[in-house]
Amino acid sequence: MKVIIPFKSRGAKSRLCAVLNEEEREEFARYMLRDVLKAICAAGIDSATIICTAPTDLALEGLNMEVCIVFDKRGLNDVLNDVLRHEGAPLLIIMADLPLLSARNIKEILSHEEDVVLAPGRKGGTNILFLRKPQQFAVDYYGVSFLDHISTARRRGLSVAIYDSFLVSTDIDEPDDLIELLIHGANKEAANFLKKIGVELDVNKEVRLRRRS
Amino acid sequence: MKVIIPFKSRGAKSRLCAVLNEEEREEFARYMLRDVLKAICAAGIDSATIICTAPTDLALEGLNMEVCIVFDKRGLNDVLNDVLRHEGAPLLIIMADLPLLSARNIKEILSHEEDVVLAPGRKGGTNILFLRKPQQFAVDYYGVSFLDHISTARRRGLSVAIYDSFLVSTDIDEPDDLIELLIHGANKEAANFLKKIGVELDVNKEVRLRRRS
Repeated sequence: MKVIIPFKSRGAKSRLCAVLNEEEREEFARYMLRDVLKAICAAGIDSATIICTAPTDLALEGLNMEVCIVFDKRGLNDVLNDVLRHEGAPLLIIMADLPLLSARNIKEILSHEEDVVLAPGRKGGTNILFLRKPQQFAVDYYGVSFLDHISTARRRGLSVAIYDSFLVSTDIDEPDDLIELLIHGANKEAANFLKKIGVELDVNKEVRLRRRS
Repeated sequence: MKVIIPFKSRGAKSRLCAVLNEEEREEFARYMLRDVLKAICAAGIDSATIICTAPTDLALEGLNMEVCIVFDKRGLNDVLNDVLRHEGAPLLIIMADLPLLSARNIKEILSHEEDVVLAPGRKGGTNILFLRKPQQFAVDYYGVSFLDHISTARRRGLSVAIYDSFLVSTDIDEPDDLIELLIHGANKEAANFLKKIGVELDVNKEVRLRRRS
């Protein structure tokens, strides 16, 4: 089985600009990637391929696994569908902005026997996709990819399972998503980074985010 | 085992005002409650108690279960802690705004052996709480209730399990939450109501909500 993690290395996480400056956003994205890799490793998987949009230092020190980095400037769908066409073995595609991902999540996803396993993200995203027969599938990550991927699987006669997880659904795109990371991300590198730079919960009547000056 | 569903019968779901008028919001809240009750019933539970803030017609026709309705003007914590103090049997507290809740979710929550099972909602909420020893616990639904409930359990020597579900985490408070209901809520009464009154997905580059005029 192969694990692929698409990673946007330049201009990542622009919607967090109200809370983090550009340099911080790029550093934060790398910590989230490390959290994802650590969950994969803790699930007993010893290698992964990161597909990067541009050359960058990914700061992968100290991870006890083999990480292969591929640079590709093409869009996400083109890159991944190219991989799918040439891949005979089962393939696990994991988004890089899922710092709450746990080893249990990965093991449970892999334990399904269906041809296609989808873990939804908010607003119709597909945060994890497990393909037992990658050559028979094609991804489309734009729009409501979750519904599109289910349609594609059914049209191609592939069986589908939906993996229901709050932790996997929590992709970090907007400032409010950081609230989830701070609440549920004890011991996650991305959460520790936020705390280090002063981003913390502001709990009054409602839960908000604040940054110490 | 007893199931309790707190339900705000007046002025419910005010944050949906950009999409639904007051009458529609109250009707929508009742449909969500029906979806929750149907999931409970499908999980093999044949009775539930709804705690209402004000007398209202809950439109519970056609549900194949015994529903007891209690009116209580007090705040959520006061009402529930009063129930807990007098309850010897295990207690399942389910929020009324979880239309995506499935029978599988409920069965999985009840299968845990821990004293306290918590299913998180967004922004630190506790969407489902299962208490095997209600008299030894006290709820606090304000602030980051998820973390507060874990602290309470630990302080009182109760074992804790966290139930990780995207469907259970999706409480419907804000317009964006309706997007989740429309994507994942096929066959849910609350989703059908939205479609009937013209609230639908607007899928372009980003997924938004729109209302047909």
